[in-house]
Amino acid sequence: MSLPRSFFLDLIEKDFSEFQAYLEKASDEEIKDLLEELHPADIADIVEELDETKRTRLMALLSTELAADVLPLVEEHRQGEVMESIAEDKLPEIIDEMDSDDVADLLEELPEEEAQEILESLPEEESAPMRQLLSYPEDTAGGLMQSELIRVSPESTLAEAAQAIREQSEEVEDVQNIYVVDSRGVLQGSLPIQRLILEDPQKKVSEVMEKKFFSIQPEVDQEQVAEMFSKYDILSLPVVDASGLLLGRILVDDVVDVIKEEASEDIYRLAGTGLEEHVTDPALTSLRMRFPWLLFNLLTSILAAMVVGLFQETLEKKVLLAVFMPIVAGMGGNAGTQSLAVITRGIALGEVTFKNAKKILLKELLAGTLNGVLLGLIMAGVAYWYASDMVLGLVLGLALIANLFVAAFSGTAIPLLLKWAKVDPALASGVIVTTATDVAGFFSFLGLATLLMAWLL
Amino acid sequence: MSLPRSFFLDLIEKDFSEFQAYLEKASDEEIKDLLEELHPADIADIVEELDETKRTRLMALLSTELAADVLPLVEEHRQGEVMESIAEDKLPEIIDEMDSDDVADLLEELPEEEAQEILESLPEEESAPMRQLLSYPEDTAGGLMQSELIRVSPESTLAEAAQAIREQSEEVEDVQNIYVVDSRGVLQGSLPIQRLILEDPQKKVSEVMEKKFFSIQPEVDQEQVAEMFSKYDILSLPVVDASGLLLGRILVDDVVDVIKEEASEDIYRLAGTGLEEHVTDPALTSLRMRFPWLLFNLLTSILAAMVVGLFQETLEKKVLLAVFMPIVAGMGGNAGTQSLAVITRGIALGEVTFKNAKKILLKELLAGTLNGVLLGLIMAGVAYWYASDMVLGLVLGLALIANLFVAAFSGTAIPLLLKWAKVDPALASGVIVTTATDVAGFFSFLGLATLLMAWLL
Repeated sequence: MSLPRSFFLDLIEKDFSEFQAYLEKASDEEIKDLLEELHPADIADIVEELDETKRTRLMALLSTELAADVLPLVEEHRQGEVMESIAEDKLPEIIDEMDSDDVADLLEELPEEEAQEILESLPEEESAPMRQLLSYPEDTAGGLMQSELIRVSPESTLAEAAQAIREQSEEVEDVQNIYVVDSRGVLQGSLPIQRLILEDPQKKVSEVMEKKFFSIQPEVDQEQVAEMFSKYDILSLPVVDASGLLLGRILVDDVVDVIKEEASEDIYRLAGTGLEEHVTDPALTSLRMRFPWLLFNLLTSILAAMVVGLFQETLEKKVLLAVFMPIVAGMGGNAGTQSLAVITRGIALGEVTFKNAKKILLKELLAGTLNGVLLGLIMAGVAYWYASDMVLGLVLGLALIANLFVAAFSGTAIPLLLKWAKVDPALASGVIVTTATDVAGFFSFLGLATLLMAWLL
Repeated sequence: MSLPRSFFLDLIEKDFSEFQAYLEKASDEEIKDLLEELHPADIADIVEELDETKRTRLMALLSTELAADVLPLVEEHRQGEVMESIAEDKLPEIIDEMDSDDVADLLEELPEEEAQEILESLPEEESAPMRQLLSYPEDTAGGLMQSELIRVSPESTLAEAAQAIREQSEEVEDVQNIYVVDSRGVLQGSLPIQRLILEDPQKKVSEVMEKKFFSIQPEVDQEQVAEMFSKYDILSLPVVDASGLLLGRILVDDVVDVIKEEASEDIYRLAGTGLEEHVTDPALTSLRMRFPWLLFNLLTSILAAMVVGLFQETLEKKVLLAVFMPIVAGMGGNAGTQSLAVITRGIALGEVTFKNAKKILLKELLAGTLNGVLLGLIMAGVAYWYASDMVLGLVLGLALIANLFVAAFSGTAIPLLLKWAKVDPALASGVIVTTATDVAGFFSFLGLATLLMAWLL
């Protein structure tokens, strides 16, 4: 029963229950052969989907090396379960094979006590750097770095550097860059591996190393790390302390995950849920994560309702206003969100500065007002056609123009103000802008209607 | 006037006008020295900000090599202007120094005619692969790949492969991977550069090459390319045609940009603007990009207003309903957006499949209804406190529960339906969900009020 790898990948994608049925029938040897064919990332996907019994069998069939590759690729919030399905005597060996940053991430997912137990089961020379890595918060450069890297002295020759790679290649997997450190451990330069092939082996490392290089300190936020990698097209970035001592390095593949995380964080914030929430969480977890945000939104929408409350007399005289009222508020919200998205992205990309803020605000106000005029004309026409009331059309049109002006203003000014106050603009801008446009929409529409009540049909 | 690099970086970040004043006073030699100190990505940032005169002077002071590094790092929609500030006789030399994928991107930004002119100015051996690259759409694997790479035969020795790198290292900058192709040009394997150092130079390439490798065809969408890089931690991916012929390769740093692009695309879609829009665009461009979306939203909000229109009689009897009406609709929209964000992300991460869709839907309905009960109780209390009307409180509470049920249902079912219909869920889900919650919110609240009108105070 030997089938090509792509067959299994298709089966896993399209019909997982059929794949599970295969697992039940297959012998241990057959499964081992299959696992050797698959990429660790695909095995991680499978492991996440299996029930406990099948998962335990599968993890037992993985070689130590393969298990060490698979485990870090399992989704963070599932790593706990997966580790429990590994035999206790096998776990230290697997951890020994893993990169230090992956072990640190793994231990952070476990309860404090279990993590300590595992640390104590490791030999001192393994656990000491691990404790060091664990001392940095997860979302900083220190939390992203690994301690495995190849160090050479600036005084050694390229032939000696090549020898150092040969000796350390078992432990250090990625060797695109070799780090040059002096006798105190201070970083002096970096040596791209191709230099070892391109240059004369008798040359000294200090002659051919890159002396201009980027480095970062461990306490820097991961978002800044991600920006640096993407701006300067970095593949591997050394982490140094304040005195220049080399502590570790960050590889681009770990940063790709951060870039994705930071990007979906923004979407989650806009939508008012936590990044930690997953579709597979139980209903009560969802409730706990979403309710506080809904409650906050309820308060802001009560504020908007209070504005409507001011105009009950007007509404009593002309109940048709209640029909058109949500349109004015809603369109303001939509237009405000558009401005907000453009400005927030502009801030993130560094295109918006306090220097050009005034020019951008004026432009947003112009674009917003023009959109308001167009939408106002259309809605004035619709209202006239529906109610044969010219003044109602006028009120609706003017209110839309006013509210799209407010939308442009708040959608531009609020993220800038938050930036100025050093609050993340993506965090709170959305609610404030839609509250502003709700309030302004109801106020302008019902206020104008009150003023022009005598002329309304 | 020689100052450290970090001084200038700070100045550029914090006070660009002061930096411009420096540029005006500084001699050509001083500026040249400064430029040699800066990273090409920082020079690109500066070039984008300068006016035409200063930009022309600065581009003239860049060496050909440095200009070739800077130009691809200028933002796409600014590359046209920057190229115009380069002396016409210098441009072909600069293009000659650039990587093929960067040249293709550059030419795509130019008017057809100018692009043709540049292509014709290049020697045949340069322009032929360029025309090939230009034949692939920008947002596919073919559009991302570069043709520069190092090829070796499986029959050659590692020593010969090292020699091939030495010969080709001028043209090919990144050499982490060497590609092994047979005499027909069909890809057979890849050779990580460290193997040249770790293995015996007399061994044959075919003995030490990686025979399991990922490759991709040029017509694959860039989003899938990005997913592959991030799932499998790839640094460099060969592009092959249907018969396995090696066409080029994609490097991770170009994919990082795609990952960021795709991520902000989702935010833009949620907010209803185009990814192409920038804060610095003129107001009329913004108008043109945003108006169609607002118009579409206007139509859906008219639909919601029509529902309110059905209940004018009810509203006439009890105008207080108009005050609470927007709260029911708004809270439904907020809760629906939360479900939508979780489900859309779950689909993107592959956590939601048609297999577990039913379970997830039931869970969302449970969480939504529970949120509805909590919010309903609160609002029933608020309404009773405000209007001393128990029945109004009851109507408001029940309507909130009903609308949060609809929010959970539409926030879950609509992205799944769109996925089933093979439409991108991020594209249209937002509008459909908020339209559904507006309609359901107005209908349930005003409908219940109509039914219970006799008991309302």
